[in-house]
Amino acid sequence: MTERQRLGVGMVGYAFMGAAHSQAWRSVNRFFDLPLEVDLAAVCGRDQEKVAAAAVKLGWRTHETDWKALLARDDVDLVDICTPGSSHAEIALAALAAGKHVLCEKPLANTVEEARAMAEAARRAEAAGVRSAVGFNYRRIPAATFARDLVAAGRLGTLRHVRAVYLQDWLVDPEFPLAWRLRREIAGSGALGDIGAHIIDLTQFISGQRISGVCALTETFVRERPLPAASGLSATGLSATGLPATGLTTARQAATGQAGATGAVTVDDAALFLARLDGGALASYEASRFALGRKNGLRVELNGSEGSLVFDLERLNELEFYDGQADGDVAGFTRVLVTEPSHPYLDAWWPPGHGLGYEHSFTHEIRDLVAAIADGTPPAPSFADGLQVQLVLDAVDRSAADGSRWTLVES
Amino acid sequence: MTERQRLGVGMVGYAFMGAAHSQAWRSVNRFFDLPLEVDLAAVCGRDQEKVAAAAVKLGWRTHETDWKALLARDDVDLVDICTPGSSHAEIALAALAAGKHVLCEKPLANTVEEARAMAEAARRAEAAGVRSAVGFNYRRIPAATFARDLVAAGRLGTLRHVRAVYLQDWLVDPEFPLAWRLRREIAGSGALGDIGAHIIDLTQFISGQRISGVCALTETFVRERPLPAASGLSATGLSATGLPATGLTTARQAATGQAGATGAVTVDDAALFLARLDGGALASYEASRFALGRKNGLRVELNGSEGSLVFDLERLNELEFYDGQADGDVAGFTRVLVTEPSHPYLDAWWPPGHGLGYEHSFTHEIRDLVAAIADGTPPAPSFADGLQVQLVLDAVDRSAADGSRWTLVES
Amino acid sequence: MTERQRLGVGMVGYAFMGAAHSQAWRSVNRFFDLPLEVDLAAVCGRDQEKVAAAAVKLGWRTHETDWKALLARDDVDLVDICTPGSSHAEIALAALAAGKHVLCEKPLANTVEEARAMAEAARRAEAAGVRSAVGFNYRRIPAATFARDLVAAGRLGTLRHVRAVYLQDWLVDPEFPLAWRLRREIAGSGALGDIGAHIIDLTQFISGQRISGVCALTETFVRERPLPAASGLSATGLSATGLPATGLTTARQAATGQAGATGAVTVDDAALFLARLDGGALASYEASRFALGRKNGLRVELNGSEGSLVFDLERLNELEFYDGQADGDVAGFTRVLVTEPSHPYLDAWWPPGHGLGYEHSFTHEIRDLVAAIADGTPPAPSFADGLQVQLVLDAVDRSAADGSRWTLVES
Amino acid sequence: MTERQRLGVGMVGYAFMGAAHSQAWRSVNRFFDLPLEVDLAAVCGRDQEKVAAAAVKLGWRTHETDWKALLARDDVDLVDICTPGSSHAEIALAALAAGKHVLCEKPLANTVEEARAMAEAARRAEAAGVRSAVGFNYRRIPAATFARDLVAAGRLGTLRHVRAVYLQDWLVDPEFPLAWRLRREIAGSGALGDIGAHIIDLTQFISGQRISGVCALTETFVRERPLPAASGLSATGLSATGLPATGLTTARQAATGQAGATGAVTVDDAALFLARLDGGALASYEASRFALGRKNGLRVELNGSEGSLVFDLERLNELEFYDGQADGDVAGFTRVLVTEPSHPYLDAWWPPGHGLGYEHSFTHEIRDLVAAIADGTPPAPSFADGLQVQLVLDAVDRSAADGSRWTLVES
Repeated sequence: MTERQRLGVGMVGYAFMGAAHSQAWRSVNRFFDLPLEVDLAAVCGRDQEKVAAAAVKLGWRTHETDWKALLARDDVDLVDICTPGSSHAEIALAALAAGKHVLCEKPLANTVEEARAMAEAARRAEAAGVRSAVGFNYRRIPAATFARDLVAAGRLGTLRHVRAVYLQDWLVDPEFPLAWRLRREIAGSGALGDIGAHIIDLTQFISGQRISGVCALTETFVRERPLPAASGLSATGLSATGLPATGLTTARQAATGQAGATGAVTVDDAALFLARLDGGALASYEASRFALGRKNGLRVELNGSEGSLVFDLERLNELEFYDGQADGDVAGFTRVLVTEPSHPYLDAWWPPGHGLGYEHSFTHEIRDLVAAIADGTPPAPSFADGLQVQLVLDAVDRSAADGSRWTLVES
Repeated sequence: MTERQRLGVGMVGYAFMGAAHSQAWRSVNRFFDLPLEVDLAAVCGRDQEKVAAAAVKLGWRTHETDWKALLARDDVDLVDICTPGSSHAEIALAALAAGKHVLCEKPLANTVEEARAMAEAARRAEAAGVRSAVGFNYRRIPAATFARDLVAAGRLGTLRHVRAVYLQDWLVDPEFPLAWRLRREIAGSGALGDIGAHIIDLTQFISGQRISGVCALTETFVRERPLPAASGLSATGLSATGLPATGLTTARQAATGQAGATGAVTVDDAALFLARLDGGALASYEASRFALGRKNGLRVELNGSEGSLVFDLERLNELEFYDGQADGDVAGFTRVLVTEPSHPYLDAWWPPGHGLGYEHSFTHEIRDLVAAIADGTPPAPSFADGLQVQLVLDAVDRSAADGSRWTLVES
Repeated sequence: MTERQRLGVGMVGYAFMGAAHSQAWRSVNRFFDLPLEVDLAAVCGRDQEKVAAAAVKLGWRTHETDWKALLARDDVDLVDICTPGSSHAEIALAALAAGKHVLCEKPLANTVEEARAMAEAARRAEAAGVRSAVGFNYRRIPAATFARDLVAAGRLGTLRHVRAVYLQDWLVDPEFPLAWRLRREIAGSGALGDIGAHIIDLTQFISGQRISGVCALTETFVRERPLPAASGLSATGLSATGLPATGLTTARQAATGQAGATGAVTVDDAALFLARLDGGALASYEASRFALGRKNGLRVELNGSEGSLVFDLERLNELEFYDGQADGDVAGFTRVLVTEPSHPYLDAWWPPGHGLGYEHSFTHEIRDLVAAIADGTPPAPSFADGLQVQLVLDAVDRSAADGSRWTLVES
Repeated sequence: MTERQRLGVGMVGYAFMGAAHSQAWRSVNRFFDLPLEVDLAAVCGRDQEKVAAAAVKLGWRTHETDWKALLARDDVDLVDICTPGSSHAEIALAALAAGKHVLCEKPLANTVEEARAMAEAARRAEAAGVRSAVGFNYRRIPAATFARDLVAAGRLGTLRHVRAVYLQDWLVDPEFPLAWRLRREIAGSGALGDIGAHIIDLTQFISGQRISGVCALTETFVRERPLPAASGLSATGLSATGLPATGLTTARQAATGQAGATGAVTVDDAALFLARLDGGALASYEASRFALGRKNGLRVELNGSEGSLVFDLERLNELEFYDGQADGDVAGFTRVLVTEPSHPYLDAWWPPGHGLGYEHSFTHEIRDLVAAIADGTPPAPSFADGLQVQLVLDAVDRSAADGSRWTLVES
């Protein structure tokens, strides 16, 4: 085996997403044959003690407390942005300007303006061989990729319907504190941008069609919540995120609130919208953090003239497929275990029936990104794709604010 | 056992709904103890030969070819209307005027005006002890009734979300002919009124809340279809309906179309809408006949602050219930087999685990109606309930026609 | 429609099975085109008052209190035996001798000797055009019949495995009283003969293979139970069975036991056995009334070289089918809704997706029997088939009594 | 964070199990807080070139071609045995003698004699602080561990029934070549020892009861198969196992056989047995590689007087639980997503609903082993546990060979 070229990675943020990305960076060369060998060069965070511990814990060679220092390092070829949306644009623009490849968590940004600037910067950087991608990792779950393949191969025929929900329940308790994900200035939006963005991207990816217009309804069921117990900056939740093993809890299990003090929830608890896709399908979307009993309930169904399919994130190793060409007597939804070597990414893993987990989506995302960097081809989903999702989010926001009227997505 | 008083029934129409109702009329006294003994006095249809055969086949004592003659009979105490929506109003108004109890299939009528007149007539008749009900039979599936009971008992807490779909696939083939259900002048609307009406009623029934406003999207995917093979009136499909055993096929399996000739589809193939319920829940609805693989795919989910539930018509003996009060370690959606003697209607049937079928919903509907007639109490769902569903359908139509703008349901 | 010939039916017993059979006798001509018109001539039971009420309730023209009188009636062409197993042989032998067709509930008898005599009598009667059948109704669930069709058509290839369980839980409570089903002298055996007989017949029917040898294990977990509250004969449970509507509860919900007094359970609570089928498949069987949470948990799986299938009685409108010929990428178990007009018996019922219930299995059983009588062909399953099941039960009993040693089924 | 003590690991074998173990050794400190820091010191295999490539690929510092050399290394504290069963005893005994901790893949050995020697050696080594464990990794799937916890906490009450199947289908094709897993001298047995051993261990672990006696049936459906294409030693399959990324296919996808030449299959294709557990439960077991459509179909159900549970490996993030204490109206099997922080091992991973995969079972197995080594406590499952499983396998073999007669498990 010849010596592979090294790809130095610097990661900003080390909470939930940081831990998931770290596992992917550590694992990608262990399962996939790639021309580049990943080097976990440095992890970056503001708290010196915590980031040092995170480096040890998550397997990074070194750490930094200033992302600008991270960008300045020669041994960093790629910057992986795992911070809340409010800092994506600044870091990504600087990284691209410094000639670093960028992987940026979704949603790409908190506003269309930021996203537009980022997409424009990415387009320019691309010409110089600097690559960028946005982290819609669910595309890289084998069953989701395989769903896209079935649609692209025409197995569904003309698409008529898309329906997608992403349901969680961690805000049902009104005493759950005002974490950063509930503050518009940090998170951009609520369920809409956090989980709604995932189903927008995933359905567009699988269907090969883009949302052209929407009518929407959003709601904040609980408008005032206790402030988090910690004071100062930590009230934003930004520094409240601990290390994975001592609690990969993120804002969700953020314990008890501050006695007495409350603050306003400034994002949506739930967002619903109807849409038309540019290929003619009708679509329905719902994102909520108030759907009791649904823990990570992302479910997507597509109906076409020749076939239908269903993907459910809570059973991510499966795909239900209805084959309209099947003999009528035995037609029905087939539960396909997407664990065969012939399925996407699966030849790198275990024998049939030995399922993968959530974190593998990141390993695959990073496999594709590293392969694209090595090949000199533009990775997907691009910042332009991220901007397009942002434009859909924006149309949803505008429709909801204007009596649900039909609102076209900007292009 | 003392002699029970007789309740003479006359039924108009003997196709799909007529066959289902007949089985219910025949069975209701065989399983339920009721103070009235049902007499299947007469069935009515326009074709002398066919209606005579239907009477024998379906177990009716006699037949009529003119519904006015049916209404004039002394041995008919109740008129059961199983015709397409375009004739509901005329027959129902006449029956009520003649002092007959009325059971009218859903949707109550094809227009708000007709429905309003019917509700008004029913209200007046009620004062004279004449009872009327509209046939939203799915309420009477034990699992659906039990779902309502759980909500009414507070087991779901404050409702946050309702989502309902009713998906079928019998129009996917563009060569399927232009049956009467595809013509606005007979059917009133398409998927919206036929199956959308069911989920509107069912979710309002289960939730105990009413839809106050909507934004909607409708579509006709295939706008021109072959005319049915038969000529004359039968092209409307009205007389194309055969007897159950020789083909309870209704319009669906209506064989081949007329060579060459086509006609315009004047109803919706699919209708989607978002809604607010008057108790504060957000809701999503979708009705389609283009969802390949979904045969009778009615699925309803409700999420509340204390519990959630799911009902799926394709598995009608089950209810999924999430109990928010359960110990967190073993919380999850419980698949409740709604076949215990303690569940609604079940003490009349079989031991636990021995499931019921679709047709039992009609037996229960009729059980409740007969009991109400005997008790002198107003049955449910009333014509007023039917009107309210019609008003929702109307709001959906208006919103769809006006750029999906938010549209209030008239009250 | 020409006048159809009449088939007069006399039924002995009117508890759980009697109620189910009555609904089938009443319904069969209403859904199926048959050359004979069924006449519910008389129901028979020992208690004058109760049987009179049952006749009214269940729709029988008259009643009898002595089954010999029933057999003597000219208007009775067929005797339907719905009593416990201990009286099957006597009634069936007399009925056949009287030239009456016989439908006998399963298991055919309580002993091999009785069953052998019955099969021999049936063979002789057959020559005289007198028909007989044993009531393994689960064969007539459309999904089960369709499963048999798939196997018969070679869709499963060479069968390798059969596994079947029939699990219930109504004996888990040790305070449940000593009902007749727990007494060997009346019921013959426990779980083995009651529900084990069903899976023996069903798997042999679907597979087209017969059990040739077994090794077995049986157990009585609770060996002493309270005597039922009623005294005298009713302690046997024979007269404890009420009318359907006032409680179709049978022994299962037999309320509380007699204070203090207990009796010995003389049948098995659970029976397990391994088997070889004569076509080369290995098989596994389990019948239990102690499987908490399983209400009517009959589940059968077959694996062959070309396909596999699963049938689950708690979801009786479905069949899971694995097609070994399917494209590997989309292979998997397909959930087939067995509700299409092309599926067995379904063209008589409702549109696709509108499920049937437990009781329809009896309507189909009776449809086949009436058709066979009209056609002059021997109906199935025959008394000889019933005897063969009895011989399997006997082999199981003998193996269990003899250290589980391999025991051949007599032929 | 203070410097942790190092635990040097040497692994023998680098095929399927080697790749799975490597990922676990690499990941365990990244997710769990442990007092020891794992060092992947060396991987060992006979082919110099291949093992060198494996070391790079799987993340091991160095490699060896002689396992005795591996045992001699000072930087190896623990030997992880991932070879076929025929070499387990020799390597393990030597490693223990050398004072190395041992993790040995299951089944512990190919014969009772070997297993007994190993258990005895482990017992002696234990006194000297040398730890050993056998790799029944399925115990460490969170849902399986949680199942054990529920039983141990009495939530199932008195156990009545255990039923377990482990079904695969990779031998259905008679042209599948004679891989090493089909040769008794290497694999010890067929489906019985390979996958049957898993369900024996798993059910004993969850139930807390041990199998005391069995009656069994085994079969080899296809008795002659093509020899594998490769010659010499590779015909045994021992050197046919490639590296993970170039094909973690193991024997299963072993391509085409050698033209013409065939050899005898000397192991079972399927093994079924009934059993009694020492706590009074009846049990049923089936292991097969001929169950078409079942890829990794391990399914375990337990029924007790107070509760029931079901675990299915193809949906390993779920547990079905029936709570006998639940209100009867809403009782049923609850689908518990075993992904909450309060569930076993889960606080180290992702938020609720973000599922784990097959490989995590090894990470947890190793977490427990490393923790036990650090704590100075005996890890589980021990070699004695492995021996006990071997004794059950032996009883099954003996019963099958002796007319299925009841056979006690040696103790």
